[in-house]
Amino acid sequence: MRVLVIGANGKVGKHIVDKLSDYGHEPVPMVRDTDQFPHFEEKGHKPVLGDLEKDFDSAFYNIDAVIFAAGSGPHTGADKTILIDQEGAIKAIERSKYFGIKKFVILSSIAADRPESTPDTIKHYMFAKHRADEHLKQSGLTYTIVRPGILTNNSGTGKVKLQKHVPGFEKIPREDVAETISFLLSESQALNKSFDLVSGEQRIQETLTN
Amino acid sequence: MRVLVIGANGKVGKHIVDKLSDYGHEPVPMVRDTDQFPHFEEKGHKPVLGDLEKDFDSAFYNIDAVIFAAGSGPHTGADKTILIDQEGAIKAIERSKYFGIKKFVILSSIAADRPESTPDTIKHYMFAKHRADEHLKQSGLTYTIVRPGILTNNSGTGKVKLQKHVPGFEKIPREDVAETISFLLSESQALNKSFDLVSGEQRIQETLTN
Repeated sequence: MRVLVIGANGKVGKHIVDKLSDYGHEPVPMVRDTDQFPHFEEKGHKPVLGDLEKDFDSAFYNIDAVIFAAGSGPHTGADKTILIDQEGAIKAIERSKYFGIKKFVILSSIAADRPESTPDTIKHYMFAKHRADEHLKQSGLTYTIVRPGILTNNSGTGKVKLQKHVPGFEKIPREDVAETISFLLSESQALNKSFDLVSGEQRIQETLTN
Repeated sequence: MRVLVIGANGKVGKHIVDKLSDYGHEPVPMVRDTDQFPHFEEKGHKPVLGDLEKDFDSAFYNIDAVIFAAGSGPHTGADKTILIDQEGAIKAIERSKYFGIKKFVILSSIAADRPESTPDTIKHYMFAKHRADEHLKQSGLTYTIVRPGILTNNSGTGKVKLQKHVPGFEKIPREDVAETISFLLSESQALNKSFDLVSGEQRIQETLTN
């Protein structure tokens, strides 16, 4: 599939572009600035320009599936949490409906399905992620929601715990998140499902076989 | 009707409590702190305790209609915009469904139906208000959405412009907003409709007759 990666320049996004290739897909990295092109071009990809806060319709040309991995990051205010994490996602979902996208995978966060139970310092963020996930569920698009635990920059191990619900806030390397998303993209058992995802004992390719 | 006023201690909320009485309703002011009780008790009302960020189910006892006039105010961050203006409203809508509330009126903001067109400084706020309004529209509740222009503390004139859409950002006294909401509450022509509201030339009671 030709897969638009929204937020490709992020830490997880870059891994996703790499892993999609490993899994036989053609990633189309969407970035905000041509300065971000060389990183992807050097790997043989053809990035497209698109700004979540403006117009990014042209990025959908000839796209089969969308992975939403954008986030405003830890150094911006809650205003950007609304504009990027929540509204950027909702806009991407709406435009995906318009363009007839076959599959939409969203990178959410552990606890985004239970925002009211999270600490006050992150509660607004969890509610914003929750709204985006809920919008996707009700969009009519074929979706998969992946809610990873606390992200680390460690190398991937290829082994995870992928379940409907994992208690607490365990960790997981960004590389393993990216591989799991790339794996789930074309798995029929992941259609219209939501998962928590943390490091574990099961090989990624075997997570749906039990 | 017995009308739960969420955000009763706010500037518009206090006017709403007064105007509801003028229009023959029984206001039930919901406030966060018993310190806020005397203001309402002195006027013969019976306030109830409820915190939008926690539990406020007990406030719904014997309530017919809900007016949502809460807002995090201009001195808090965008995190509170998410938690109060957006999520507080969504929670109030959901609890109103649960309790079989007959009518839900939300105090929105002019331009909340076109957030993408607003200045960057207020865009996140407009999107949060927009999400709350959209949630109400799709809730199945009988609703009225009122989007006032820039609020002033001037005395009410009793004359407004109430239309589906008013361009720009005109002003309106909070007292006139409160009276318009109180008037619309039991008007069948306002059911499941949304209005912009600014100062104008038409008497409030005649706004739906043209």
